[in-house]
Parts: sequence; C-alpha cells; structure tokens
Amino acid sequence: MALFIIRYGEVGLKSKAVRRRFENALRRNIAERFILQKLECRIELDWGRVYLWTDETDKAAEILRKTFGIVSFSRAIECSSDKQDICANAAALSKPLYKNGMSFRVKARRTGQHDYTSMELAKEAGSAVWLANEERGPSVNLTDPDLTVYIEVRQNRAYVFSEVVQGPGGMPLATQGRVLGYVNDGRGAAACWMMMKRGCKVIVATDNDDLIRKLRDWDPNIKVVDSVPISEVIDLARKFKVDGVVFGWSLDEFEYYQSQVGEMTLPIFHPLIGMGESDINELIGQFI
Amino acid sequence: MALFIIRYGEVGLKSKAVRRRFENALRRNIAERFILQKLECRIELDWGRVYLWTDETDKAAEILRKTFGIVSFSRAIECSSDKQDICANAAALSKPLYKNGMSFRVKARRTGQHDYTSMELAKEAGSAVWLANEERGPSVNLTDPDLTVYIEVRQNRAYVFSEVVQGPGGMPLATQGRVLGYVNDGRGAAACWMMMKRGCKVIVATDNDDLIRKLRDWDPNIKVVDSVPISEVIDLARKFKVDGVVFGWSLDEFEYYQSQVGEMTLPIFHPLIGMGESDINELIGQFI
Repeated sequence: MALFIIRYGEVGLKSKAVRRRFENALRRNIAERFILQKLECRIELDWGRVYLWTDETDKAAEILRKTFGIVSFSRAIECSSDKQDICANAAALSKPLYKNGMSFRVKARRTGQHDYTSMELAKEAGSAVWLANEERGPSVNLTDPDLTVYIEVRQNRAYVFSEVVQGPGGMPLATQGRVLGYVNDGRGAAACWMMMKRGCKVIVATDNDDLIRKLRDWDPNIKVVDSVPISEVIDLARKFKVDGVVFGWSLDEFEYYQSQVGEMTLPIFHPLIGMGESDINELIGQFI
Repeated sequence: MALFIIRYGEVGLKSKAVRRRFENALRRNIAERFILQKLECRIELDWGRVYLWTDETDKAAEILRKTFGIVSFSRAIECSSDKQDICANAAALSKPLYKNGMSFRVKARRTGQHDYTSMELAKEAGSAVWLANEERGPSVNLTDPDLTVYIEVRQNRAYVFSEVVQGPGGMPLATQGRVLGYVNDGRGAAACWMMMKRGCKVIVATDNDDLIRKLRDWDPNIKVVDSVPISEVIDLARKFKVDGVVFGWSLDEFEYYQSQVGEMTLPIFHPLIGMGESDINELIGQFI
C-alpha cells in the first residue's frame, strides 16, 4: 500500500484538548470521504501528522487536496531508521525522477535517538543519490534544485519523499458550529466556502445545482435545502437550529439586502464584507 | 514640479455616476493629506487617471502608498506628443538609471490620433535609449529586462516613466458609510483597516495609542473616541449615529464576545471572520 504523510496545524492550536479535537475531526473527515467513495484506507495519528495508507493514490490525492485542515501532504516511502536502508530508499526514489543534467539536494530531519546526525544522514543519502544517477550528470544545488529528496526520521521509522502538495489549510469541518448559507450566486458559495474552511458545517439554501456540486467537493455530506425568499431566511435558519446565517454580500450590496432580511435574531456572517471584487473573483476561481 | 500619474479603479465601477463619486473622493482625499502636511500640489482628473504635480516627491510617494483607492502610481516626465520629443525624454530618463550590462525594453501605448503607431514609437524610442547608453553595453530583453521605459501618449501630451509603484487598492475613504470600530488589539485594528479599504469612514473606539497612530497613516482625519466596555459598544455606536459596528473577532472568539455585546440593533461587521490566524497576521504585517 502507498503511504501519504499529511501535515495539518494552524497557529493557535494551543491546548492539547483543542489539538485532539482537531486531529480526530480531521481523521474522521478523511475516513468518511474514503468510505463514501468506497475506497479502502488505514489512518494513524502521530504528533502533528496523519499517516494514511491506501492503494488508490490518485483518488487519495484528489480527496486530500480538498479536505479542510490539511496544510500539505506527501506520498512517501516508509523504511526503518537504519542509515543504509534510508540511503538505499533515497537512491531508489530519485532514479525514476532523475533526468539528464538535473540538480538535486537532500533535506533530512529527525526526531528520536539515532547513531547519526541529520547532517550526516543528508550527506550520505546525497552520495547515494549521486551514485544512483551518476551517468545522468548530477549536480548539487542547495538553494533552487530541480529535485529535492526529503528524509524524515521519526524514532525507528523513516520516510522518504520528493514532493510536498499544498492542501487548503483552515480548520477541519465540524470543529466549529453549524450555519445556514444563503447561496444564490458564486459569491454566496464563496462565503460558505470561507466559513467551511474555518470549520463550520454549512447547511446550504440554494436552487443552483452547479454550486451545490462545487461545495460538495469540499463537504460530500453537505446538507442542501430549497432556497426561500430572502425575507424568510431567518425562519429557515431557526427551523434548522443553526448558530448563524452566512451571506455573500459585499459592502456595496449590504444595505440593499440587509433591509430585506428582517429582524436579525441570529448572528449574520458576511465573510466577503472586507474584500474587493477582484479578491472575491480570485477566491471563487480557487475553489470552483 | 514633478508629476505623478496615479491609477485607480476597481472592477465594478460600472456607472458614470459611481465613477465620478469615486474620482472626486480620491482627489479630495489626496488633497486633504497634502494640506494636512502643509505640502503644495496640483491635482487633475482625466479618464481613469489622476495627475498630481508637486515638489515634494518623497513625501508624495509616502502619501500615495497609503491612500485607499490607488492601484498604482508612477513618477513621470511630461512632454509633447511629438515623436522626437518623446524619444529624447526616454533617452534622458534612462541615462541616470542605466548601469553597465543592463538589459531594457520600451513599452508604448497611445490614445488619440498621431502620425506614428505605438509599435513605431517603441522601436524608435528603443533606439534612442540604446544610443544614449551605448558605451554601457545595452541589450534588449522583452520579457524580463532590468529596466523598462514606459511611454504613454494621451492626445497631444506624452508621459515617460520607468517605475510602477503599487498602492493599496480598494475604495477611496468616505465612498461608503460610517462605522464604529472597536479596537482593543491588532485584530480590531486590522478589521477597521479592511473596512477603511472598502471605503468606510471608521470612528475608532480605543485606548491604544500605537494602533491609533498606525490607522492614522491611512486616514489622517480618523476620529478617535475613548474605549468603553464591550457591553456599551452599541450605545456608543448609536450616539455617533454610525451605520454599523466593526469587530476583529475570528470565528473561535465569536461566541464568547457576541454574548457580551448585548442587543444587536445595528449591523455588525467582522471582516476577519473567514480568515485564519496566519492570514490575519499577514494582514496586520502589511499595514502596521
């Protein structure tokens, strides 16, 4: 099975309890998405990392790219913390990726006790990568290489990888409250997306199937209800006992719509209120 | 006197009336800042541009960098639209900037009727720049040159410049409503800054002199009132007849603070609600 190392974390995860809640939500969210797609995986948590084993590497990458809370992930080779073993795996990883005339570097880090330093390990693995690609004219470039081989040693296991893929960041879904999102256009969807990224579960009131499909990429379990006139949104929100309502208004539109919403007995969130049109379009382009 | 060309504009400036209001507010804001600093300037509006003449170039640049609504600006040489005149000015502009072995390009654009095309003008001005710097070994690089000489011909005038400085963008101050900003920390200040960038005049309730000073860089006329306990913010807002209240809460903090604000009879804006801590810190770093 292939292994993915998944990195998460927002500054501000201060307490152990918050961290545990964050980790468990992230693990549950990833597992649910695999189950929904009838894919098998195994997930383990360890000190600021999630390890995921699966045979479906392409589909897994697709899921991880759209799971809130994930900062980045890497497909990795796992081996023992034995130096020779690591060097052999670094060399093996580099061979199919190495092309004539490419430059490379090795970056190594460790946690735990070992009979080598990170620097020694990087140097030795660097030699192994060099020898494995000798006929391709390798060169070392520490600042801007064509290929970076990363080595992470954690206690008695080591992980070797070459690529770090960005995730969306933010907080895992369902680590914050539940809100109702009023989605009649791309801006409404963008506003929901921002609240989802902050960890909210969003119930979407919309009649736009395209936008539902886009939001479902990020929360496959997203609850969708039929849209209502804007004057009835607060009633709808009360019915679903949500903690607040999300709108995609910009400041120009605020006055016009606000007056139509009626009595505000629930918190209203408009996460786009401080953004200009070009910022909002960029945001929509990012997730649609 | 030195001339600055100032570019503004947000997508969404659709109607002529909105555009005029935007332009007049921008002109007034720039003029006010010069007056406050006892600096002289002359300002003219023309088709999506503001022209500003002043002797105080450093102070002017400092002001323009922190005036909302300005997308970019350039210090320019003004001359007639005569081709020889433009070429001579392009050459003169390049000479003090040109160093041995540098590459350059000339970019030209025109509005109005002339006896040359933009392409012809760029070619001829390119030759003039080349000749002026011949002993420094010039070379042309159209994609990533060390120096770009920009030429803009507008009817019977032309402008030659080499630098485009980014402004903050957004909407000029006072093109939107008035809000009360509750500022007890950097996040509160960042939230106010975002609403100011959207065109709001913000009255700041704070006891933090450092933050006042930072916000005053962006609105020298900013009104500051003493802070109050959070439970009295709404009363304060009513007293000043503002259109809404601005807080710097993130979603985590929302529930805690919201309950302390009391009855929400005014719109509440929390422009940071959809942002993570690293986004917010980046924002604070930008304007503080």
